[in-house]
Amino acid sequence: MGLLSDIRLPEDVRALTPGQMPELAEEIRRFLVESVSRTGGHLGPNLGVVELTIALHRVFDSPRDAIVFDTGHQSYVHKLLTGRQDFSDLRKRGGISGYPSRAESEHDVVENSHASTALSWADGIAKANQVRGKDDHVVAVIGDGALTGGMAWEALNNIAESRDRKLVIVVNDNGRSYSPTIGGLANHLDTLRTTHGYEAFLGWATRTLHRSGAPGRFAWRWLHGLKKGLKDVVAPQGMFEDLGIKYIGPVDGHDTEALERALGRAKAFGRPVIVHAITEKGRGYKPAEEDIADRFHAVGVIHPETGLPVAQSRFGWTKVFADEIVRIGRRRPDVVAITAAMLHPVGLAPFQEEFPDRTFDVGIAEQHAVTSAAGMAYAGLHPVVAVYATFLNRAFDQVLMDVALHKAGVTFVLDRAGITGDDGASHNGMWDMAMLRIVPGLRLAAPRDEPTLREALRAAVDVDDAPTVVRYPKGAVGDDVPALESLDGVDVVGRFEAAAGRAGTPRRVLVVGVGSMAGCALETGEALAAHGVEATVVAPTWVLPVPENLVKLCGEHDLVVTVEDGVVDGGVGDMLAQRAGEQGIGTPQVHLGLPVAFLDHASRDHIVRAQRMTAADATRDALAALALL
Amino acid sequence: MGLLSDIRLPEDVRALTPGQMPELAEEIRRFLVESVSRTGGHLGPNLGVVELTIALHRVFDSPRDAIVFDTGHQSYVHKLLTGRQDFSDLRKRGGISGYPSRAESEHDVVENSHASTALSWADGIAKANQVRGKDDHVVAVIGDGALTGGMAWEALNNIAESRDRKLVIVVNDNGRSYSPTIGGLANHLDTLRTTHGYEAFLGWATRTLHRSGAPGRFAWRWLHGLKKGLKDVVAPQGMFEDLGIKYIGPVDGHDTEALERALGRAKAFGRPVIVHAITEKGRGYKPAEEDIADRFHAVGVIHPETGLPVAQSRFGWTKVFADEIVRIGRRRPDVVAITAAMLHPVGLAPFQEEFPDRTFDVGIAEQHAVTSAAGMAYAGLHPVVAVYATFLNRAFDQVLMDVALHKAGVTFVLDRAGITGDDGASHNGMWDMAMLRIVPGLRLAAPRDEPTLREALRAAVDVDDAPTVVRYPKGAVGDDVPALESLDGVDVVGRFEAAAGRAGTPRRVLVVGVGSMAGCALETGEALAAHGVEATVVAPTWVLPVPENLVKLCGEHDLVVTVEDGVVDGGVGDMLAQRAGEQGIGTPQVHLGLPVAFLDHASRDHIVRAQRMTAADATRDALAALALL
Repeated sequence: MGLLSDIRLPEDVRALTPGQMPELAEEIRRFLVESVSRTGGHLGPNLGVVELTIALHRVFDSPRDAIVFDTGHQSYVHKLLTGRQDFSDLRKRGGISGYPSRAESEHDVVENSHASTALSWADGIAKANQVRGKDDHVVAVIGDGALTGGMAWEALNNIAESRDRKLVIVVNDNGRSYSPTIGGLANHLDTLRTTHGYEAFLGWATRTLHRSGAPGRFAWRWLHGLKKGLKDVVAPQGMFEDLGIKYIGPVDGHDTEALERALGRAKAFGRPVIVHAITEKGRGYKPAEEDIADRFHAVGVIHPETGLPVAQSRFGWTKVFADEIVRIGRRRPDVVAITAAMLHPVGLAPFQEEFPDRTFDVGIAEQHAVTSAAGMAYAGLHPVVAVYATFLNRAFDQVLMDVALHKAGVTFVLDRAGITGDDGASHNGMWDMAMLRIVPGLRLAAPRDEPTLREALRAAVDVDDAPTVVRYPKGAVGDDVPALESLDGVDVVGRFEAAAGRAGTPRRVLVVGVGSMAGCALETGEALAAHGVEATVVAPTWVLPVPENLVKLCGEHDLVVTVEDGVVDGGVGDMLAQRAGEQGIGTPQVHLGLPVAFLDHASRDHIVRAQRMTAADATRDALAALALL
Repeated sequence: MGLLSDIRLPEDVRALTPGQMPELAEEIRRFLVESVSRTGGHLGPNLGVVELTIALHRVFDSPRDAIVFDTGHQSYVHKLLTGRQDFSDLRKRGGISGYPSRAESEHDVVENSHASTALSWADGIAKANQVRGKDDHVVAVIGDGALTGGMAWEALNNIAESRDRKLVIVVNDNGRSYSPTIGGLANHLDTLRTTHGYEAFLGWATRTLHRSGAPGRFAWRWLHGLKKGLKDVVAPQGMFEDLGIKYIGPVDGHDTEALERALGRAKAFGRPVIVHAITEKGRGYKPAEEDIADRFHAVGVIHPETGLPVAQSRFGWTKVFADEIVRIGRRRPDVVAITAAMLHPVGLAPFQEEFPDRTFDVGIAEQHAVTSAAGMAYAGLHPVVAVYATFLNRAFDQVLMDVALHKAGVTFVLDRAGITGDDGASHNGMWDMAMLRIVPGLRLAAPRDEPTLREALRAAVDVDDAPTVVRYPKGAVGDDVPALESLDGVDVVGRFEAAAGRAGTPRRVLVVGVGSMAGCALETGEALAAHGVEATVVAPTWVLPVPENLVKLCGEHDLVVTVEDGVVDGGVGDMLAQRAGEQGIGTPQVHLGLPVAFLDHASRDHIVRAQRMTAADATRDALAALALL
C-alpha cells in the first residue's frame, strides 16, 4: 500500500495532490475488501463512501470540525484516515469497533448505531458552537434511508431555523438503506438525481426571453425574481429549500474533485446547507455491485474474490419465523406484516413474496410502524411488526399509547433480542423485557426452541385485544428442549434427583431458564444435582404477565434461580420475586442476567462468560445462596 | 339553542342547509364558552375548529369514514355533533372525557393525546381498508404544530407511497401549537398561507405568452408542461407535492362553504390529499383572540365574559423550577434550556426572557430535543430539557442511546410526573421511574418540596457525565417537609415512638415517601405510632440509583413500606427490595403506588384514593403485614 499506509492523520490526506485521490481510493477499496472479507463487517456501505470520506477530510478540519456519521457502520474509511489501520480484529473484543468510538479516537463523535440521529447531534453541536462563540463547522453524513426516520425531519425543521450556524448535511444517497428506500422522499430524491437542467435552462431563458420583447422581459422578471421557484421547475429541490435549507447537488459521490468543490462551497456558505451526493453501495467490488438483495450490507467471513460466505450460515431463529409467518398468512387473510426497512434481515421476504399486498415496509420509521399497526388493528387486521429488539425502544411510547391503550391486537416480533455482541452497545436487544413490563395488558413470549417459537407465534396472532411480543436471539436455534410436563404453560424441562452422599433431606432448587437460556438452566439443574441438591428446571415460554404457576412453584422450593438474556433489573427474575413477595412467598431468589450497563463489542460467548451467565455461574451462586440459608 | 340541541347524529348536521351553518357555528361557540368556562378545558383549540368540524361531518360519513383527531383536545365540537351535549362534568369522573373516547362513541377513534400520531393511525386504517377491499375514507385532522413531530414525517412519507388509498389530511393551521410553531415547516406554511397567486398568474401567462410569438410559446410549453413546478413559482406548496401528496389550499377555516368545497374535492380525488385550512385559535371569543400568550389553550374555571380565572392558580412546582433555573442560568453561562413546544407550560418563559440565545424551542419534537441536547453536551454546554413526564416516553431510545451511552451531562426536568388526573390515561406521568431505571448511569431525583427541588436542580446541572432527571408533580407545592437528620442524602423526616399500651418491644417500620408522597409517609408514620408501632419516615430526594443508606435502613427495621406516585411494578419500592435482597436483607416490604394500568380521567385525589395510596391505606397494609410476621 503506497499512499494509505503513510496516512496517520487527516492532514496527511490534505497534503496529497488531487491527482493522487483515485489511487488512494483504489488502495482503500482493496484494503476494505481484503480485510473485511477476513473478519466480516459492513462492507457495502463503506465501499460506497470512499471518495466522500476522503473529500470530507480534505475540506473539513476534524476534530475541530465535528464529522457525525449517521448509524456509524460507514465509518471504516474515516477510521483508516484517522490513525486506525489495524482491522485484523474488527468488531472483536480488543479490536476496533465496527462503529465510531470515542475511546478509539477524538475524531469519533457518535457511537449510537440507531439511524436518523446525526442531524439532531449536528444541530446540537452547531447550537453549542454558536452559544460558545466558536466558528467551527459541523458535518452530518446521513443516508437517504435514514432521512425517512422522523428524527431527521425534526432536526431538519430546527436546522432550517438556524440561519447563521455552520452546518453541512451530506446526504449519502445510494437509493437504498437496507432495502430500496421507500416512500415519497425516495421519489423526490429520485427526481433530484435525474434532473440536471437548471443551469442549462437559465442560459436558454436569458437568451430567449430577452430577445422576445416586452411581455418576454416581463416574464423574465418573474422568472429571475423568483429564481428559487424557477429552480424547482427544472430541478425540484424544493422540499429542502422550502424548509429554508440551501441545496447543492446532485454531486457524483465517486468524483473526489466534484465532491471537494461541492463541500468547499457548502463550507464557505456558512449556513445550513445540504450536499446531495449520489453514491453506489458496494462500489468497486463486483460481487456487491451485482447483488440486488443487498447481501453485502453486512457480511460474515467471505471469499474476497467471489463474495461467497466461507461458512454456511446456520438455520437461525429468523428463518423459523420466516417460515411460520408464511404458514400463518395462508390461514389468516387478516394477518399483515410490517417492517422498518429490514425486510430481509427480519425474515419477511418470503411473506412479501407470497403476500405482496399484505406486506408494508415503512422505511426506517419504527414509530410509524407501530402506530400504523394500531390503525390497521382498529380497521380489522392483525398486524405483525417485525423489528430488531433494540429498535423497538424507539417506539416505546407508541406501543404504550397507541397499541396498548387502545387494546389493539398487534404482534411484535423482536429479532436479535438479548446479547448480539459484535455490533456493540447499541445493538444489544437487552432492554425489551424490563421496558415492556410496564405496558398494561402486554403479553410477552420468550420461546426456547423451534417448536415453542412456532407455537408462540400462532398464539400471538390469536390475541386481538392487546399487544403481544415474541422475542428471540440472534443466530442459530439450539436443539429442541422438550417439556417433561406442562403446568399451565410453565414447561418443566428437567427434574434432577439429588446425587446420593449427603445427609438429610436434599434442598430443592427451582431453576428458571428464560428463552434460549433454557439450555443453561438444564445444565445448572444437572450440576446442582451432582452437588446433592434436588432441582426442578422450568422454561416458561410466556413470561409477561408472570405465570401464576411459576409463582406457585417458587413456594415449593428452597431457592429460586433465574437466568435471562436481558437486563436483570426489572427483568423476569425481578418480576417473579415481586409477584411471589406479594403472595407472601419469601423463597430467596438469585437472578442472573445482564447488568444495567452498556456492553462493549465482543462475541456473545465472551459476554455470557464475562457477565456471569453460564451454568457454572448459576450453579456457584445457587450453592452459595443455599449455604447461607 | 335552536339548531344544536336537535343534533343527535352527523346526519342531522347534513340535513341542515348551507345557509344555517353560520347560525349553528354561532350556537356551538356560545355553548363552548359558557360550558368550558364553568368546567375548565381546552377552550382555544375547540373555538378554532367549529366550522371545520361541521364541514367534516357534512362531507364525510362518520363512523364509516374514520375521522382521526391528532392530540384530541380539539374534539369537543365533534362530540357535540355526535350525540354528546352534556358537558357539565367534562373531564371529571363519570363525565365525558376531554379527548376522544371509544367508550363514549363509535365516532371516536384515537384516545392518545400525544401529538403527531394521527397520520400514522390514518395510514394504518387506509391500508387496512385497502387490504379488506373497503372503499371508506379516512380523515386525519392535524395541527401545524403537530406536523413538526417526526412521526408526522414518517407517516407523510408512507402516505405518499399509497397512490390509491382514500386518505385526507386536514392541516388545521393556526400558526401555533402551544407556542408559535417553530422552524422551517412553519416558514413554509407561512408562505403557503400568504400566497394565492397561482390561478391569477396562470391566466396572465396564458394571455401574455400566447401573444408574444414563438419563443413565448416555447416558454409556455415549458411552463404548462411543468405545471407542478410552476405552481411552486407562485404558490410553493412544493414540499407536499414533491412528496407526492396532492395539496388543496389554503382554505379559510371559518368559511363552512369553502371548507365543504375543498373537502368535497379532496374526497372525490380518491387518493392521498392535503387540505390546508387556516384557522384562528380561540376564534369568536374576544379574550382568547386578543391573548398572545395562548393562555386559552387550556383553561381552568374562568369568568365567561372576561376570561379571567375564578380562582388564582396556586404557587406550583413549575414556578419554583422557573425561578431556580433562571438563578442557575445567571451563574452558569453553559447552561441552556430546551423545550418541545411547551415554553410556558414547563416554566421556561422567564429563562427565555433573560437568556433568549440560550433557549431552544424545538417544536413538538421530543426525540430531537433529547439528541440535540447530547450534541450540545458534547460541545461543552449543559442542556436542561424540560418536558411533561409523559412525553419523555417518546424519547426513551434517545435518552438511552444518545445521552446515556455517550455519558452526556444533560438534565431532564419532568413536570406533571405521576398522577395528573383530568386529562386521562395518556397524560399521567407515571411511567418515568420504572422506564428510566434501566438507563445506565442515570440519576433521578424526586424532590418533596420547594427546598429539595431547588437543591436537586442545582445538583443536577453539576453532573457532567450522565443524564440526571428531576421529576415533580402537577399543581401546588405543599408545605416544606424539613429533614430531622440526613443520612448521606436519605432524609429522615419523621421519627415516631410507639404509643404506650402494648406489651413487648414495639415493631419498627421504615416508611419511605417518594417525592410528594413524603407527606403521606409522615401521616402513615404517625398513624402507625398510634397503633403501637415505632416508625422511621424517610424521604430520599435521589432515588436512582437506590441510595445505599436506604438499603441499610431496611435491614434495621421489621417492615418497609414505600409510597410512590408512579407504577409500582419496577418502581422505587421494587428497586429497593431488589437491592436489599442482593445484600441478603430480607425485611418484608409493602409497596404502594400505581398499578400497570391506564387510569381513566378523574381528579388526582380520587385516583389516589381509588388506587389505595393514602396514609390510611399504607397504615392498614403495614399493620396487616406486621400481623403476618
